[in-house]
Order: sequence, then C-alpha cells, then structure tokens
Amino acid sequence: MSEETRSRILEAGAELIHQRGFNNTGLKDILKAADVPKGSFYFYFDNKEAFGIELVDFMRQRFAEIVLPLVADTSISPLERLHAFFDFFIAHFASQGFTRGCPFGNLAQEMSDLSEPFRAKLEEALNGLAKTFTTLLVEAEECGEIPADLNLEETAIFMVQAWHGAIIRMKVTKEASPLILCKKTIFERLLK
Amino acid sequence: MSEETRSRILEAGAELIHQRGFNNTGLKDILKAADVPKGSFYFYFDNKEAFGIELVDFMRQRFAEIVLPLVADTSISPLERLHAFFDFFIAHFASQGFTRGCPFGNLAQEMSDLSEPFRAKLEEALNGLAKTFTTLLVEAEECGEIPADLNLEETAIFMVQAWHGAIIRMKVTKEASPLILCKKTIFERLLK
Repeated sequence: MSEETRSRILEAGAELIHQRGFNNTGLKDILKAADVPKGSFYFYFDNKEAFGIELVDFMRQRFAEIVLPLVADTSISPLERLHAFFDFFIAHFASQGFTRGCPFGNLAQEMSDLSEPFRAKLEEALNGLAKTFTTLLVEAEECGEIPADLNLEETAIFMVQAWHGAIIRMKVTKEASPLILCKKTIFERLLK
Repeated sequence: MSEETRSRILEAGAELIHQRGFNNTGLKDILKAADVPKGSFYFYFDNKEAFGIELVDFMRQRFAEIVLPLVADTSISPLERLHAFFDFFIAHFASQGFTRGCPFGNLAQEMSDLSEPFRAKLEEALNGLAKTFTTLLVEAEECGEIPADLNLEETAIFMVQAWHGAIIRMKVTKEASPLILCKKTIFERLLK
C-alpha cells in the first residue's frame, strides 16, 4: 500500500468519472487507467461508494488549487476577481469542447438520490463554492462595487445554481453562449 | 408487437431512468417493471440508445400534457401563469421528497457527451421549454406586466438554465429553498 498508488487511483477515477459519469465508469477501467493491478482496489477503498465520496474531497482540493489564487489575487478588485473566476472556467470549458461540465454538479445530479453519504458530501462541496462567492461579494460590497442592499448569501447560492444550470445547457449546445449569458445576467442584472 | 406493449416499456423506462439515471438502469429492470418478456425489447427498439432518444419524445409529450393547460389558462394573466408553472413544479418536487429532478436536465447532464443523437434530441427538448417561457414573456410584455426593454429570448433561456441549476441544488439539499430562491430571483430581479 502506498499513498502514491492511492492518489493515482483517485486521479484516474476523477478523470474517467468526469468524462462518463459515476455509475457508467467501472472500477476495472479506473484501475487500468491508473496502472494498478485489478485486485488491489480494496486495499485502498472499502467499496465504490466510499471511493466516490473520497473522490469529492480529492476534487475539492484540486478545485481549491485553481480557485484560491484567483479569489485571493488582491492586485485586482473583488468584482474583477469574480469576473476572472467565470472567465477562467469559460476558457477551461472551451478548451474541452464544452464537454464534461462541473464534476460536483454532475455528481450532485447523479448521486444525491442514490447514496445519502454521497449526498451529504456533495452538499458540503456545493456550499463551499457558495461560500467562496459570498466572501467575494462581501468584499465587493465593502468596496462599494455592488449595491449595499443585496442579500449576499442568497445571491451567492443563486449564482452557483445558475452556473450549474448554464453548464447543463452548455453540455447540450456545445457552445459558450449559456455560460456567457449566465455571467452577463449575474453581473448586469443581479449585482447592479 | 403491440403499441400498448411499446408504451408500457416507455412508461416503465421513464419511471426507472428518472429515479436512477440512464446508464444505471438496465433493460432487464425496465422490461420486468413493464411486465414484458425479456427477449422482446428488440422487437420494439433497435438498442438502448434508440430507446432513450424515443423516451425523450415520450417524456416531452407527457410534460406538454401537464404544462400546456397551465400555460394556456387565459383566466389568469401571463405572469400569473408563469407563477403557476413554478408553483406547480415546486409542489410536484415536494411531493417526491425533492428527488429525481427534471428528466430532461438529468439526461442532458448525463448523456450529452456520450451520444450525439441523444444530445441533439435533448437540445430540442431544452429549446422547447425555453420557447414556452418566451411565449409567456411575449404575452406578459404585451400586457405591460414586465419591462419593455427585456431581451425575452435570452431571459427565457436564462430562466430554464437557472431552474435546472436550482433543481441540482434541490436534489442535494432535499429542500424547496433552492427552487423558491430561483423563482424569487426570476420574478423580483429579472422580470422587474
């Protein structure tokens, strides 16, 4: 048992499940992609559900590595950082041909009804993103960049929701326009 | 071969796939639920993908049977009909313990990257809902119920997106609040 092998399985699982969905991805394929012998999965994880739940934390860590530098870049204003967040992910999805979408949104849709521990873990993940938005909105309000009478927590939650819905339409249309419309509506209608 | 058997397979498939997802539902289970002999699936459908694509049309027809009366109820104003649409589905999701979600949004998320004909069919379905909203918004504008300077098509598409995203959060939180927040934001922020 090595931590490195364990990480390799998580890495391969994150990639394949993001492409194909959780139930549509076999452990066999994940182990093959990770170049790990077939039988060894259960040395590392209790079962596929436990693996999936741990995968959410693994993905959150990778997500934080991307997002925290964007959000903490005080060389630009809070609202500019929010712009940078959306622009980063619009470019990211474009680079993938508008496939895959948000790994947390995907699992939330697929797994929330099928596994209670999975659901609880995904609720944490979605709340984490809302919290990131709330933090930026609080700073933006302090700078006078957004109206003073907004309910910032509700606005942040709505932004996460609208973004996840935009990603669903993006996967269907294979275009940036749903994401751009979402960003535009947030900045021009909700935060003005 | 009978049309009635064919419908029974579609009915059972719609139910199980809505609960569990497309890839997570076996043909065997659908046929069992439909009380149809195992071997007979291929008398009715070429393969599971073709079945799924036909299922989208089947579900659109059922959806239209619910939505058209709401949308065409001229005893109330266009904006009141839009309220009725959201209130109907909030009550509907509540009656199901905030599980399942939108069958079109679910399949859009799950299948758009995995099958091009499925993606194209789901794009039609999502555009259909946007068109329903657009029609109501056009009437609402004519009655002076909403501002005259809105881009109605874009607003309708954003409404569908935001609703699908709200449904994802609803599945995770198992509460009405994401749906209520979505409705409130649409009516109090976008349509004012």
